[in-house]
Amino acid sequence: MKFIEKYRKICLKNNSLLCVGLDSDLSKIPSFLKEKSENPLWEFNKRIIDATYKYVAVYKPNFAFYISQGEQGIIALEKTLSYIPEEIPIILDVKIGDIGNTMKHYAKAYFGKYNVDAITANPLMGFDVIDPLLEFPDRYIFLLVLTSNKSNKDFLNDEQEMYVKICKKIMGWSTSNIGAVVGATNIDKIQEIRNLLPDSVFLIPGIGAQGGDLENVMKYAVSQNEPNILINSSRGIIFAGTDDAPENFPKAAGIAAKELQKSINSYL
Amino acid sequence: MKFIEKYRKICLKNNSLLCVGLDSDLSKIPSFLKEKSENPLWEFNKRIIDATYKYVAVYKPNFAFYISQGEQGIIALEKTLSYIPEEIPIILDVKIGDIGNTMKHYAKAYFGKYNVDAITANPLMGFDVIDPLLEFPDRYIFLLVLTSNKSNKDFLNDEQEMYVKICKKIMGWSTSNIGAVVGATNIDKIQEIRNLLPDSVFLIPGIGAQGGDLENVMKYAVSQNEPNILINSSRGIIFAGTDDAPENFPKAAGIAAKELQKSINSYL
Repeated sequence: MKFIEKYRKICLKNNSLLCVGLDSDLSKIPSFLKEKSENPLWEFNKRIIDATYKYVAVYKPNFAFYISQGEQGIIALEKTLSYIPEEIPIILDVKIGDIGNTMKHYAKAYFGKYNVDAITANPLMGFDVIDPLLEFPDRYIFLLVLTSNKSNKDFLNDEQEMYVKICKKIMGWSTSNIGAVVGATNIDKIQEIRNLLPDSVFLIPGIGAQGGDLENVMKYAVSQNEPNILINSSRGIIFAGTDDAPENFPKAAGIAAKELQKSINSYL
Repeated sequence: MKFIEKYRKICLKNNSLLCVGLDSDLSKIPSFLKEKSENPLWEFNKRIIDATYKYVAVYKPNFAFYISQGEQGIIALEKTLSYIPEEIPIILDVKIGDIGNTMKHYAKAYFGKYNVDAITANPLMGFDVIDPLLEFPDRYIFLLVLTSNKSNKDFLNDEQEMYVKICKKIMGWSTSNIGAVVGATNIDKIQEIRNLLPDSVFLIPGIGAQGGDLENVMKYAVSQNEPNILINSSRGIIFAGTDDAPENFPKAAGIAAKELQKSINSYL
C-alpha cells in the first residue's frame, strides 16, 4: 500500500495525527530494564509501542539512538521495525543526502531491507538525493524544509529564504511522494510553506522540548481537504514517566500519547 | 593525536595525499569471497587494506555500504575500523546533520564508540550540527561545501552561491577543526573556495568515475604552506581488478592506489 493511503487509513482508525519519535536514548532508559535485558533498547521500545499504538498515526525512530549502540542497536532497530503493527506507517529519521550511486544503496537499505514506509532526507545536494528514492513509488520522503532548531537561521531561514527555494524545487519535481519537515518553532512561516506545498504531508517536530506552539501550528499547517500533518513528539512521550515511576514508564507514555492526540484533535 | 597532526605525519611517511573510499558494495565483491566467508564485506576490506595501506593517507568508508547489510554490515565496519593501521586516519562518510540533542548522540557514536578521526557532515541545519562535534577537539569535520554531483546546481551552486555562504560561516565559526568537501567536478570554483578557506583540509571526490580533472584540481586546490588536500578515489581503486581477475583483486587495487598516489604527487 502507498504510504499516503496507509497514513490516511490509520489517521481515521486511530483518530490521530500523532507521530511518536522513538529517540530511545539508552542513558535515559530505566535501569531495571538495563539490568535484566540483553537488549534494553528493544525491550524499552516494545513496551512503549504496546502502551501507545492505539493513539498514534506514525512511529519515527531516529537512527542516531540505534547506531550509537553498534550491532545491538541495529538489532534493536530491526526488532522494533518488525514489531510495529503493519497498519502503522514508520518514518526512519536518517536525514540522509548523498550522490546518486550512494543514495541507491541507502534506498535499497531503508526501503528494501529495513522496509520502512518513509525516511527523512536532506535536500542540500539536490535532486540526485531524491531520484533513487523515487524508484520506490509506494514510499514517501520527508525533506528538510525548515527545521525546528535555532541555527536554522544560518541557511534555511536567512534573508535568502532557502526554505522557499526548497519548496519550489519540490513543486518542480512534480511527484506526490515528497513531504516536508517543518519545525513548529517557525509559526510565522508555516502558512507560507503550506501555500507553496498544498498537498504535501508535513512532519512537524518542535512541540514540547523545543517550545513550539501547538495551537498556532494547527491553525497554519493543516491543509484544505485533508489535515496532511503529523505532529511529532519524542522525549515528551517516551520518557514521560521514567523519572518519577520508572517501573510504570509505559503507562505514563500511554497517557502522554493519549493527551497529545486529544490536544491535537481539539484544534481541528 | 589531533587529526591534523596524524594527517600530516602519514602524508609524509607514505608520501601520499590519497584517500581510498571503502565504498564496499556487496554486489561488486568477487563471488569467491561471498561463498567462503561469513562476512564478505569485512574479508574484502581486509584484503584491500593489506594491498593499499602503504600508498594511502586516509581511508574513508561510506556508511551506506555497511548499513545496507544490517548488523553484519555494522560488524564489518567495526572490524575494518579496528584493522586500519593506527597511524592512518579514518574519515567515516556519513554526511549527517541533525538538531543538537541528536548530534550529541552521533558525535558520541562516531567519535566515541566507533572512534574515527573525522566524519563528513551536512551544514544545512546550521551551527547546531557542528557544535556537538566540536566537543571532540582532536577530531575533524569535513563539511559539504560544493559536492561533485550534477544536481549541486539545485542549491549549493546556483546563482546565490550557497557554497560561498558555507565557507563564510566556517570562517566565522573560527575553529581549526573544519575542512571542506569540494568536488573535483567544479574546477572553476576550487580556487575561490581555497581563497576563502586557506588552511582547511579539502576532501576532494569526483576524480575518476565522476570525471574530475586531477591536473586542474591540484593546480587550484593545494594551499600555500601545506598541500591540505585529500584526493578521494573509491570504485576506481577498490574494484580495479574485480572484473578481469577476481582472484587477484587486491593486487589490482594496490597497483591502482600506487598509480594514483604517484599521479597526484606529480602535480605537486
